[in-house]
Amino acid sequence: MPKLKLVSTGGTIACLPGENGLMPGLTGSQLLEYADMPVFDVDCVDLFSMDSSNIQPEEWRVIAEEIKKSVEQGYGGVIVTHGTDTMAYTASMLSFMLLNIPIPVVMTGSQYPIVRPDSDGRKNLKDALIAARRMAGGVYVCFGGSFILGCRAVKTRTVSRNAFESINYPYIGTVANDAYVELYPHRPNGEFQFFDAIDERVALIKLIPGTSPAILEMLLNCDVKGVVVEAFGLGGVHNFRRDHAESIKKLVKGGIPVVLTSQCLYEASTPDIYEVSHALREAGVISAADMTTEAAVTKLMYALGHTKDLLEIRAKMQTDLCGELGVVAGE
Amino acid sequence: MPKLKLVSTGGTIACLPGENGLMPGLTGSQLLEYADMPVFDVDCVDLFSMDSSNIQPEEWRVIAEEIKKSVEQGYGGVIVTHGTDTMAYTASMLSFMLLNIPIPVVMTGSQYPIVRPDSDGRKNLKDALIAARRMAGGVYVCFGGSFILGCRAVKTRTVSRNAFESINYPYIGTVANDAYVELYPHRPNGEFQFFDAIDERVALIKLIPGTSPAILEMLLNCDVKGVVVEAFGLGGVHNFRRDHAESIKKLVKGGIPVVLTSQCLYEASTPDIYEVSHALREAGVISAADMTTEAAVTKLMYALGHTKDLLEIRAKMQTDLCGELGVVAGE
Repeated sequence: MPKLKLVSTGGTIACLPGENGLMPGLTGSQLLEYADMPVFDVDCVDLFSMDSSNIQPEEWRVIAEEIKKSVEQGYGGVIVTHGTDTMAYTASMLSFMLLNIPIPVVMTGSQYPIVRPDSDGRKNLKDALIAARRMAGGVYVCFGGSFILGCRAVKTRTVSRNAFESINYPYIGTVANDAYVELYPHRPNGEFQFFDAIDERVALIKLIPGTSPAILEMLLNCDVKGVVVEAFGLGGVHNFRRDHAESIKKLVKGGIPVVLTSQCLYEASTPDIYEVSHALREAGVISAADMTTEAAVTKLMYALGHTKDLLEIRAKMQTDLCGELGVVAGE
Repeated sequence: MPKLKLVSTGGTIACLPGENGLMPGLTGSQLLEYADMPVFDVDCVDLFSMDSSNIQPEEWRVIAEEIKKSVEQGYGGVIVTHGTDTMAYTASMLSFMLLNIPIPVVMTGSQYPIVRPDSDGRKNLKDALIAARRMAGGVYVCFGGSFILGCRAVKTRTVSRNAFESINYPYIGTVANDAYVELYPHRPNGEFQFFDAIDERVALIKLIPGTSPAILEMLLNCDVKGVVVEAFGLGGVHNFRRDHAESIKKLVKGGIPVVLTSQCLYEASTPDIYEVSHALREAGVISAADMTTEAAVTKLMYALGHTKDLLEIRAKMQTDLCGELGVVAGE
């Protein structure tokens, strides 16, 4: 049996009651005491004790580095306990920073603190421990009995135990009778590439009717190197009265890549169908196609870490790296 | 049988192919020819022929005015054909602008142009025609066989026929055997109040890990009168390194109400549970609780149209007006 490493970062799973509300407090080895199964051959590394609302690009680099080290140290798998609020962002980011990782990285956490007898954390941690000895290389989210490809996970529920969904992609596996069952195969697709020089200077703009173009254009005066626009439906924006298409053109002309995604949770976006998106296509907008917003944002940080060339960024964004992109947008 | 009015605004349902993609072209009476049923006693008013990505607060006022006129003219119900991309925003906004409207306002549209034999527009329009003679007063979205309270509708799918979901609220009705079936009663809750002096100067900020506080703070220098923040999970924001809580405090101190909602599609948010949100509660953030982002944004525009007083805005936002708010956030 390969040895596992548990990397703890905090989150609800590790929470204890404090004066102003719940705060992470338990260590990794304390978490393991609640796992509802005999735990053996698991080493613990406590990186942080943070609410995941505070996990930022700086923490992503520390987590990625610890996981890379775990590969070098010969661990068979890594479990990362993490708050749920930004777990989908971290899972997406790690999918790119640890491209084609040869061992499984299973992220998990819970909606209720593991010290509570009815906590979902106990089963989530147990499922992660079972699966981390069986899954192929890759980054996954284990939650509510489901295993989701890291770059396809989205937190869709604020309180229920089935908090995460796999968006535009099949579920990877489940646990039945204390055994991991693969539902849809995922395998590393090439050489392991560690990359932590991401450029986090990405802004996300979710449009609403009446959004002032000034809000898009003021990004030209901020320290922003890339923009993801959550547009309407298939990828529509105002191109009349308040002309978002014109603002997006200005951003692209200013050397800032603009990635267009949909505010609809499910299914792909494309700027290719409606007349209203014609100006966007002309402006050189990059379609996120069926990527989640979490994947689009983190992949853009990854691409910007490699290059600032708009054509190279477009090429990278429109290439599937680890399962995050299924429908490649037409040019 | 009461007479109905069909108010057409454009959208995919009315689309015809153009040189640069699909563009709305059909009038209301042309749409009715495709409704798959004998149509009688329906008057048509063609307001716009617009892609709904371009429907803005200015159009909301025109639509609301036309519907108010329809009440005065004695119509028994109004059908509004509209593009799907912003239909949930328009439906939410009309719910507030036409509070307690005594007749049903049924918004519908389609994912595929009605001129296509396989278009979902034919059944959607037929369903709307059947229901608009049976439903109680209120604003609804009719789509894919389901009737959704307007202020609870969200477009969740970019291409499928079941494009809309009812979020944190039961479905209102359905059509079976060409008859409207009520599933969950909705009735006007007081006097009809028409209000079109909304203040659309609202900005929406969806946070991502690493969002610069500068992006929140630059709203102080824009012509913005209210902000909705789509936070992480139950309502978390960074309060460390990049301190969103501090930026939100500055906005509130600057007289700008800040409404906190979740980027999770389902279930309520609350800043009351985690320590990380303590500073937000102290800053006087207003919880959107279980409102959709679409409802939170449009209700804030409605509240800002009445007053700029922060306490009055908070009171209005935390009062259920038409079914948009079920879980009232603890203070």
